[in-house]
Amino acid sequence: MSKWPKQVTIKEVGPRDGLQNEKTAISTEDKIAWINQLSKTGLTYIEITSFVHPKWIPQLSDAFEVAMRIERAPGVTYAALVPNQKGLEKALAAQVDEVAVFMSASETHNRKNINKSIEETFPVLEEVVRAAKQEGKTVRGYVSTVFGCPYEGNVSVEQVIRVSERLFDMGIDELSLGDTIGVATPKQVQELLEIVLKRFPKEKLAMHFHDTRGTALANILISLEMGITTFDSSLGGLGGCPYAPGASGNVATDDLVYMLHGMDIATGIDVGRLMEAALFIQEKIGRPLSSRYLQTISM
Amino acid sequence: MSKWPKQVTIKEVGPRDGLQNEKTAISTEDKIAWINQLSKTGLTYIEITSFVHPKWIPQLSDAFEVAMRIERAPGVTYAALVPNQKGLEKALAAQVDEVAVFMSASETHNRKNINKSIEETFPVLEEVVRAAKQEGKTVRGYVSTVFGCPYEGNVSVEQVIRVSERLFDMGIDELSLGDTIGVATPKQVQELLEIVLKRFPKEKLAMHFHDTRGTALANILISLEMGITTFDSSLGGLGGCPYAPGASGNVATDDLVYMLHGMDIATGIDVGRLMEAALFIQEKIGRPLSSRYLQTISM
Repeated sequence: MSKWPKQVTIKEVGPRDGLQNEKTAISTEDKIAWINQLSKTGLTYIEITSFVHPKWIPQLSDAFEVAMRIERAPGVTYAALVPNQKGLEKALAAQVDEVAVFMSASETHNRKNINKSIEETFPVLEEVVRAAKQEGKTVRGYVSTVFGCPYEGNVSVEQVIRVSERLFDMGIDELSLGDTIGVATPKQVQELLEIVLKRFPKEKLAMHFHDTRGTALANILISLEMGITTFDSSLGGLGGCPYAPGASGNVATDDLVYMLHGMDIATGIDVGRLMEAALFIQEKIGRPLSSRYLQTISM
Repeated sequence: MSKWPKQVTIKEVGPRDGLQNEKTAISTEDKIAWINQLSKTGLTYIEITSFVHPKWIPQLSDAFEVAMRIERAPGVTYAALVPNQKGLEKALAAQVDEVAVFMSASETHNRKNINKSIEETFPVLEEVVRAAKQEGKTVRGYVSTVFGCPYEGNVSVEQVIRVSERLFDMGIDELSLGDTIGVATPKQVQELLEIVLKRFPKEKLAMHFHDTRGTALANILISLEMGITTFDSSLGGLGGCPYAPGASGNVATDDLVYMLHGMDIATGIDVGRLMEAALFIQEKIGRPLSSRYLQTISM
């Protein structure tokens, strides 16, 4: 009945999207050790840090050092988030393979997050994309609040398309559509993808779900059925709220891999090594992470 | 693309399957207060307790008192688990509306759980079903370990069919297929249902998922696509391990309702009242429950 792909690419965003939302400070040494472990799991893409101003995300103020000191495994793309030209320069100096730019589909979230209107953000990102491309880097574009905005509520598909189109026009190589606050359900995902897939090639699309309301794997299942083969996730479901153990950040890489492998969909990931890396970072965070699968082996 | 039903029936099994797996003792008064709250949420089916010997499940040793003292709301079916004729007699004396019999698809789990072989279990259940029917009760049949056994690993679809067929032959009104240890993935669910739906009418089938590895809502999504419209769940995801906050018991009613309502699938449930009941039992259990949705309103 359902058509699922035979292979999926998982992009590990835990060192960036996971850790930036954790209250526990992780030392630079531990970040490096963890990323080095991740490099040996079979993952082919790791978003290692963010070159935003340390004032905004103090958890990642060691971006340069982390990027410079990790071991680079062949076949692994090491990416970093950059907000502007200044961030890009640092990321280039730190020799990342790929840079990721970001903005929101909703006006208010964009203003709160980037301190600019959507219209004002476009030229800033355009400059970053052009400069990164000149340096031979690939560029990923993130669109946040695709399925809902914490300030505005509903976000129209038209607005998502408008922002996505501008990012593709700038020359990004891949677009990651983010359910930043974890509100999406499979129907919404289907309705969005029906429109998005008419405009952009599925090979250039990634879905980025948060598991805040438990729907992330169901949203991934419907995405798979619609032909999407790239998903962002964080090992252990890092980025959840430490005061509410059930609350989750990104969909957990380990839960995702469990589901995909159980469906005979290849990821190239070695589960044993992945779980070693998960137990390592769980111990450093110092509380049970929100991933379900991890808890079955942590007990 | 996908075909989803317009309406789904949720069968709340938290007072039985949830509480029997919780370490925290809940007082009889609190159980009654909680079930009375559940009766006002729009749920049409509540499995309130189990009439197994208190030696096996001391948490539910107050089964008779709970069943006798709850307020019975019109339109709500109050069901209880019964293992044998003795349990049935108590359940009938306590005036439950429906009884549920249970057995496993795997030989070893059946022996460990019921202390009988599968073949020895059939006549016991047959007698219970016959007697319950004579008293005008409807009967639900549970099959456990449908997607995997903690002792045997894989469980064949043939074995599930064999046990299910015998239960239907006895005269059960509904069959609930249980992923007792929470190992199923959507592919396995699809493969099972493709065979099961050729043998039994979908109106008589319910799916009973545990969210141990995070796949429950994805498994429900594929079940919906295949025509299943009845699902068991526990409010708050009760029944998880208290020492591993991410570990979950039954799929959480609140996560399920969030997904279904977001897909415009009606359940008849009032989310506000449901969450009041969830916060009540969470407070009594004394730890954050494993449901994702509940944590977004608990913070």
